[in-house]
Amino acid sequence: MKGNVLVGQSGGPTAVINASLAGVFKTAKERGYNKVYGMRYGIQGFMDEQYVDLSDHIKNELDLELLKRTPSAFLGTCRYKLPEIHEDKSVYERIFELLDKLDIEVFIYIGGNDSMDTIRKLFDYSLLTGAKQKFVGCPKTIDNDLAITDHTPGFGSAAKYIATSTKEIICDAMGFSYKKKNVNIVEIMGRNAGWLTGAAALSKSEDCEGPDLIYLPELPFDIEGFVEEVKKLLEKKDVVVAVVSEGIKTKEGKYVCEYAGADSLDAFGHIQMSGTAAYLAQVVKNELGCKTRAIELSTLQRAAAHLASKIDVDEAFNVGGATVKAADEGSSGVMVVIDRVSDDPYQSATGVYDVHRIANGEKVVPRKWINKAGNYVTEEFLDYVRPLIQGHYTPMMVEGLPRHLSINLKNYDWSAPRGK
Amino acid sequence: MKGNVLVGQSGGPTAVINASLAGVFKTAKERGYNKVYGMRYGIQGFMDEQYVDLSDHIKNELDLELLKRTPSAFLGTCRYKLPEIHEDKSVYERIFELLDKLDIEVFIYIGGNDSMDTIRKLFDYSLLTGAKQKFVGCPKTIDNDLAITDHTPGFGSAAKYIATSTKEIICDAMGFSYKKKNVNIVEIMGRNAGWLTGAAALSKSEDCEGPDLIYLPELPFDIEGFVEEVKKLLEKKDVVVAVVSEGIKTKEGKYVCEYAGADSLDAFGHIQMSGTAAYLAQVVKNELGCKTRAIELSTLQRAAAHLASKIDVDEAFNVGGATVKAADEGSSGVMVVIDRVSDDPYQSATGVYDVHRIANGEKVVPRKWINKAGNYVTEEFLDYVRPLIQGHYTPMMVEGLPRHLSINLKNYDWSAPRGK
Repeated sequence: MKGNVLVGQSGGPTAVINASLAGVFKTAKERGYNKVYGMRYGIQGFMDEQYVDLSDHIKNELDLELLKRTPSAFLGTCRYKLPEIHEDKSVYERIFELLDKLDIEVFIYIGGNDSMDTIRKLFDYSLLTGAKQKFVGCPKTIDNDLAITDHTPGFGSAAKYIATSTKEIICDAMGFSYKKKNVNIVEIMGRNAGWLTGAAALSKSEDCEGPDLIYLPELPFDIEGFVEEVKKLLEKKDVVVAVVSEGIKTKEGKYVCEYAGADSLDAFGHIQMSGTAAYLAQVVKNELGCKTRAIELSTLQRAAAHLASKIDVDEAFNVGGATVKAADEGSSGVMVVIDRVSDDPYQSATGVYDVHRIANGEKVVPRKWINKAGNYVTEEFLDYVRPLIQGHYTPMMVEGLPRHLSINLKNYDWSAPRGK
Repeated sequence: MKGNVLVGQSGGPTAVINASLAGVFKTAKERGYNKVYGMRYGIQGFMDEQYVDLSDHIKNELDLELLKRTPSAFLGTCRYKLPEIHEDKSVYERIFELLDKLDIEVFIYIGGNDSMDTIRKLFDYSLLTGAKQKFVGCPKTIDNDLAITDHTPGFGSAAKYIATSTKEIICDAMGFSYKKKNVNIVEIMGRNAGWLTGAAALSKSEDCEGPDLIYLPELPFDIEGFVEEVKKLLEKKDVVVAVVSEGIKTKEGKYVCEYAGADSLDAFGHIQMSGTAAYLAQVVKNELGCKTRAIELSTLQRAAAHLASKIDVDEAFNVGGATVKAADEGSSGVMVVIDRVSDDPYQSATGVYDVHRIANGEKVVPRKWINKAGNYVTEEFLDYVRPLIQGHYTPMMVEGLPRHLSINLKNYDWSAPRGK
């Protein structure tokens, strides 16, 4: 009889991070593991012995399908950075004591760069102590900034939401343009990598002009130059739509959102961004005197499971399953990656890579995939992203709203008066 | 042979305003009218002789279905207020000259309160001059603030988008709550009426706790009291979600967003709102020191056709058709309204009302549908809204994105290199 599997979720959630969890659960059961435990709130909660037996929550195939359609981290997530092993061994002793207590054979961590750092450290510690557990990372991030993997689960659905919303925003703005010029600035997530911001260009299609300007964080942003570009466009057309990354910086290295007064840091020392579009809208309004609108797509970029990409959900599910398979076949200290086998028709396959080669390397949009002027992405960029937004995972609608699987609520009591 | 129909769209768009346009077109054709002209940018564009023959754009049943799924105003919209007849007769002479030139028998205007004012004035002028045209209003507004009609087309889809997004936002926030309290403030459209803000409570269901606090613009908002409520909740739970209308005012009569510095006016003298949530998040952060997030649902509330309610799309389509039917049967100076025939099961039917009784009366949420404390809606409110968000109009997906019908773009050239 095999032992148990432990799985956790870490960092910012995505629309499909639970599809990976579903994949881990299903493959673990199919491969004959005994229990599948889920850490509540990642490694941080686990150290406080916060965990659940996933079989108490995923009771049948319908629950599994609901889990695939549930946004955010079903188990809860954390932003907790393990100390270096030589800095504080007691943390590691605590974790491995719990792993032994729960008879864990396989440890899966679903996350981004910071989470792969956790897998690397736990694996290194297991080498030092000869611990039996296998440690495998499952990639996840809407930002698509993980190295080596062709792309990350979560990116495709966020890109689909952004492209769809951009289409709808452009449609809305076009309807208002009579004798009234308007400038719309859409702010997209992505601290250092412009993958999501560039995805707004997918809205350019037979029935939509797409945005006029797109600014990625990979290149320095010139505020005055931007106003000039908008001014030139307004001479030719009535509606201008610009899409900017939350992470654009001036050539002095200062975030545009800092001009708007944002200044708080998260647990990893990253600046909390927002207000970039609002600031630029104010500048355009002051300089050009036209009507402006700032739209921050905000949290919904990573939470809009109702518009998830089928390719993305299926890949997230497969990648989750592949982590258990890799561990079961003897791998440890690895992350599962997605390889693009073919572009046209699009086909992908999973592989495994040494996690030491992955952690903390940030993949940005190559310069050749941004146009010369630095204000749009190229056709090659779009050819890369387009396959990842294909297909639709129809939400399971109950009372007019998408149903999710929730770890927090009790079973509903049908005998009680409804909703009272 | 019957003459022609002229139809226009006015005011803020909705996800289903084009479904009404589709209904007007279809019924006009079925009832034997000759041409159906569409005003570009409402009455304002029409006075500049901006109009199209809709048959050039709606060529088959597929186009009609695409139109039903296209957000924003297909024809373009305006915010143009006609002068009183005695103030400037020349405007009316100009309009009626064009109506005669185009052999218009039926004039349909799709819009909200301000648009019904246009129907009333044109009808009154036709009475004065004995003009032959019929003038019929087609209700539309996400705000649901039109009197006499049970609800307005556009409201149900916006409510569905808001409830779905609120569910996804709560899901996202819950995932982050370990040893880190967080307060999320969601800002919803609705200047004076809280119908949409209250609809966020629909997210409360078997799998979601729903928001903790909901503040409608119908009641004075107490900033200090709000902070106290949040503080009390944080003693019991880690995640607090508050939903506020963009139009909440303090008892001094000052909009909360004014404290944040918003001050511009639109063409009807309404204050341009936004920044209410951002301001309150800042106050909570300063007072309570916890992590806060402000989320403005923004333009997407009225543009997210990809999540339209089937009930809403079908009613919008039917109401559009009913305007032509009413005119064809001799009515003028009326607006089509929706009557709720039955609650359970939900059934509705169209009727007609004298437009003089409708224009400029704003329907707000009755006090008895808000709880005593003034920070939530009642079950009766939810029973009223819930039927209107039911059912889903599956978008027609092309290349992974919802396809719309566009008046602006030419037919696609398949022989050209794709997307280059």
